[in-house]
Amino acid sequence: MTDARKLVVFDDNAPLYVDLLRGALEAEWDVKSGPNSTIWLRDHIADADAAIGLKLPTELRCKAAKLKLLLFPGAGFMHRDPEELPEGCQHANVYEHEIPVAEYVFLALLTLATGQTESAAAFRHGEWLGNGRVGGAPRRELFGGMLGLIGFGHIGREVARRAEAFGLRVQAIRSKAAPEALAALLSTSDFVVVACPLTPETKGMLTGERLRLMKPNAILVNVARAEIVEEAALFQALRERWFAAAALDVWYRYPAHADERLHGSQYPFHELPNVLATPHSSAWTGPMIARRARQMAANLDRFARGEPIERVVLTGTWRGSCGSPV
Amino acid sequence: MTDARKLVVFDDNAPLYVDLLRGALEAEWDVKSGPNSTIWLRDHIADADAAIGLKLPTELRCKAAKLKLLLFPGAGFMHRDPEELPEGCQHANVYEHEIPVAEYVFLALLTLATGQTESAAAFRHGEWLGNGRVGGAPRRELFGGMLGLIGFGHIGREVARRAEAFGLRVQAIRSKAAPEALAALLSTSDFVVVACPLTPETKGMLTGERLRLMKPNAILVNVARAEIVEEAALFQALRERWFAAAALDVWYRYPAHADERLHGSQYPFHELPNVLATPHSSAWTGPMIARRARQMAANLDRFARGEPIERVVLTGTWRGSCGSPV
Repeated sequence: MTDARKLVVFDDNAPLYVDLLRGALEAEWDVKSGPNSTIWLRDHIADADAAIGLKLPTELRCKAAKLKLLLFPGAGFMHRDPEELPEGCQHANVYEHEIPVAEYVFLALLTLATGQTESAAAFRHGEWLGNGRVGGAPRRELFGGMLGLIGFGHIGREVARRAEAFGLRVQAIRSKAAPEALAALLSTSDFVVVACPLTPETKGMLTGERLRLMKPNAILVNVARAEIVEEAALFQALRERWFAAAALDVWYRYPAHADERLHGSQYPFHELPNVLATPHSSAWTGPMIARRARQMAANLDRFARGEPIERVVLTGTWRGSCGSPV
Repeated sequence: MTDARKLVVFDDNAPLYVDLLRGALEAEWDVKSGPNSTIWLRDHIADADAAIGLKLPTELRCKAAKLKLLLFPGAGFMHRDPEELPEGCQHANVYEHEIPVAEYVFLALLTLATGQTESAAAFRHGEWLGNGRVGGAPRRELFGGMLGLIGFGHIGREVARRAEAFGLRVQAIRSKAAPEALAALLSTSDFVVVACPLTPETKGMLTGERLRLMKPNAILVNVARAEIVEEAALFQALRERWFAAAALDVWYRYPAHADERLHGSQYPFHELPNVLATPHSSAWTGPMIARRARQMAANLDRFARGEPIERVVLTGTWRGSCGSPV
């Protein structure tokens, strides 16, 4: 018998990628997969060398005696306190969402800049809106406009690459830039894309005062985290048209399960005609899931070969044992 | 007094660009503008050196004794018989639509590939379709797909440039390519964009037999002319889902005036959920109109300086005079 390492996948989305993951693994791995459930995990975590899941329940950290690697199956991560994970357990994440998110940014900008969706709806009734020969106001183009990127990480770079081909000019600031740089970007961009991490510094960074700096024709796209933009101020800005429109894929509240109907904010953004609102769905594509499976397999194989893990965000420090005080 | 040349603009859209045109002209031009009306034009064409308009009415060619340049204010042209224009009158056109048309192609591909418009509509009611955490099927990406261009002129090149930045592979054929090349393109492309001129050779080129070659997941975009694709076959193909979806901006019939409600085909494309139908509105943008005004001014100034005109499509040969037999 081989000394295969043991991997436990506790993720409701495991059925979408666990076969791809198995196919991509080169080292010997014994893979068990199940739901994101504490009960199920309790029975499988004890002999796991590695795991894939959103968050290890705190009450199970004492059971995870062999756990040396916890992979978060997405960008971001949920463990921020090293005491939540057993000592020496590395916590790593995975990107690959930057491509569909950049594609979403262009879908959003083109939709809001051109108004073709409204023309298509009217055309179902035989109305020719925006046709040059029978009337209708001319539309906007992206070409020649200034795109302002707040954040210049994986997503920002993919957006910038496409923007250049569209003939957009691009300016970008890091989320840690000086307030003057943010103000200059907001007041000179035709299209503003928020693509920075949510941190204590970026939380509420786009205040009402700053949203008022935006150009009257500007379009805002948020594909980062809702809380970077002040909720009440954003709603007021869009209702009163301080700038033209916004595409929002990230929200201030989320449903707990699939059947829950819930608007993403306490304010009725869904009633505003100048908002393209999507349910945090920009990144969720088949090819993205396949790329993540391959990247997670590569990290698991690095672990099996004793090589350094990539994209480590945290290493556990908890030294207790089952029965020890929490 | 200067010897200003006389320009007559007979175009219902003249109010959108005649001031831009005046501002861009460098030579001395006396500019008169009015509607696309034979009655109005009859009173103004006699002393015109140049004109801008869709088509010179045949009954006025004998009045246009001085006319040496007729600019068509768009791509394409309506005079195909040199006998319709006075001898020596050059007929030239103007492009500049390739940028908004290329932008439309990406709006169309992203809309149809991702289904985000449907998600946005459901999200107005609080439904979270296509969100990775609470369910919903993963979407498609453009990235990595094969884009097949039928036609590789101004539009094709602008589409290809953007496609490369999106990580699409691109293949293109000229509309005069061999039937085998067209068949190979149709059977190997994930996205097919029709961007060739309508000619006797391309009319009906995409027959039902050829549409059946397309991949089951393929998306078709027609931004050229409707008649390149066989009308009945296209409707059947989309209704029966020989391939996935189509974006159609060009139509088999057009309204005569702004108030006429009319579907673009005798077949109910507007009832098909897998069709994004727009009213030939992809090119009609403010910046496009401004670029055309500048390009037309440059051609008028070339004429004034005795330099060769650009984009000449035809030179008139009619030698009659008013009262001469037609």
